[in-house]
Amino acid sequence: MKSIKIFCPGSVANISCGFDILGLCLDNVGDEMIVTQTKKKGIELEICGDYIVTKDINKNAASVSALALLKSFKHIDFGFHISVNKKIKPGSGIGSSAASSAGSVFAINELLKRPFTNKELIPFAAEGEYACTNSYHADNITAVLLGGITLVRSNKEFDVVKLKTPLQLFVTIIHPQVEIKTSDSRILVQRKIEISKLTEQASNLGAFISALYNEDYDMISRCIKDIVVEPYRSEIIPEFNNLKKIALESGSIGFGISGSGPSMFSLSKGPKIANDVKINLEKHLEKKNIKYKSYVSMVNDTGIKII
Amino acid sequence: MKSIKIFCPGSVANISCGFDILGLCLDNVGDEMIVTQTKKKGIELEICGDYIVTKDINKNAASVSALALLKSFKHIDFGFHISVNKKIKPGSGIGSSAASSAGSVFAINELLKRPFTNKELIPFAAEGEYACTNSYHADNITAVLLGGITLVRSNKEFDVVKLKTPLQLFVTIIHPQVEIKTSDSRILVQRKIEISKLTEQASNLGAFISALYNEDYDMISRCIKDIVVEPYRSEIIPEFNNLKKIALESGSIGFGISGSGPSMFSLSKGPKIANDVKINLEKHLEKKNIKYKSYVSMVNDTGIKII
Repeated sequence: MKSIKIFCPGSVANISCGFDILGLCLDNVGDEMIVTQTKKKGIELEICGDYIVTKDINKNAASVSALALLKSFKHIDFGFHISVNKKIKPGSGIGSSAASSAGSVFAINELLKRPFTNKELIPFAAEGEYACTNSYHADNITAVLLGGITLVRSNKEFDVVKLKTPLQLFVTIIHPQVEIKTSDSRILVQRKIEISKLTEQASNLGAFISALYNEDYDMISRCIKDIVVEPYRSEIIPEFNNLKKIALESGSIGFGISGSGPSMFSLSKGPKIANDVKINLEKHLEKKNIKYKSYVSMVNDTGIKII
Repeated sequence: MKSIKIFCPGSVANISCGFDILGLCLDNVGDEMIVTQTKKKGIELEICGDYIVTKDINKNAASVSALALLKSFKHIDFGFHISVNKKIKPGSGIGSSAASSAGSVFAINELLKRPFTNKELIPFAAEGEYACTNSYHADNITAVLLGGITLVRSNKEFDVVKLKTPLQLFVTIIHPQVEIKTSDSRILVQRKIEISKLTEQASNLGAFISALYNEDYDMISRCIKDIVVEPYRSEIIPEFNNLKKIALESGSIGFGISGSGPSMFSLSKGPKIANDVKINLEKHLEKKNIKYKSYVSMVNDTGIKII
């Protein structure tokens, strides 16, 4: 039977200034997935790897999005077996569910010889995200399906755009091994804000996007701010303020919470600084006896890929 | 004595999705100003033209910004005579005070052989705006001083950037002859908003900026939305909803309030549609017996210029 093996990358949502809007695709952090066409109709699911996720076909992100995709075809007299090799910890803030949601539909679409573009797969992948978080948000799945740095204009219409990625932009991820559920973390931000804060947050987002096109790293640095969500969410992330200070002192051009945390991201110009940041963040967490995972990654401009 | 004559263009602030952030410089709508170096120290002010504005040196936008600029020099043993030929109606919503605030400092800087870049003139021009509106906002003056479409990241640090202007972008301005004071109009927007509205408004701004760089007119069209301010401000602008409908039916890719109104702007792809929009808006206001002024303008990429 036809079979495909893919790399399903992790991703950073929000990037501080773009809450529920921006996403960035990582390069060397992600799950693997093998999808095989089967004679039997429907979806079969197998989970292996470092982390346990639900095997319930109607709850697992990979199978839910796959089922949504299959529903869009009138007649299909075969099925698919999805084997998820989970390497991204669920609840880590680097898009574990998005990797699964997007991965399965990408793989099935490939096996069917691409009836859909990657962009057209977003609504199906969003069903997988919904199964995990009870809300339609396309920031992570868009980054994973299109690659690079992406913007979601509308989560209702899935109107998305891939932005330009400055070539020297590198990401450091530091993931303290504590779990925060995305759904819990979202409760923290159900607040009203002043119009002046809207203007401040939106102007940082606008200037950030312009800076991506102009490859203006200084401007990027001034824009990586979150005055709306970070003040609340950072309270439940261990050592957030100290880690931010260390990152910026190590040459980071921007530091914040990845998605709903607890992972944090740092952006740097070039891999050397990104690595310095990683080493200094690690040292601090070791001093504090907090277990962590950490990565340095370039921005993955391809997104999900066949391996 | 040395003398200079300049064109001080009108401008559109906000562009719906960028409240207090975006500005767009107009091409064939504006004041004229003659600035002459004088032996006498200080600033002299003369007002002529179609509209009356204050001649009080400490209140007029042109003289206040000029005085702020002169203060930045340690020794200056001469002065300037500023003659403002006012063609933009104050309170029209197309940057009448910004044209004056920016014009005088631009002209004096030219006469002094440019000790400052145009960007460096923004803090001085902002003093003129402050004198008229009691707030520091740089959206109009930035558009006028840099030309094109501009973004203000911070009104505190005057951190601004000139964006890319799609070549086929044309503007229609329709100005019903009713007066709304900017300061009154700002009161209407002192409200708190839901975080979800922040996301919606900011994502439109972000996508708009990306669309400028990609020259994606369809995306521009989907982004010219204002869910925060327009619902309130439009209530005090005569025929707003009907005019918006007419503009969009005439081929406009976006219609909204210019600055704090009552002028309205429409964006179109190409001059023909911009002119069709103008004609159809005029017809409607004539039917309703509302006096108006109207213009079609390309985006002025130069900003203020010597004439």
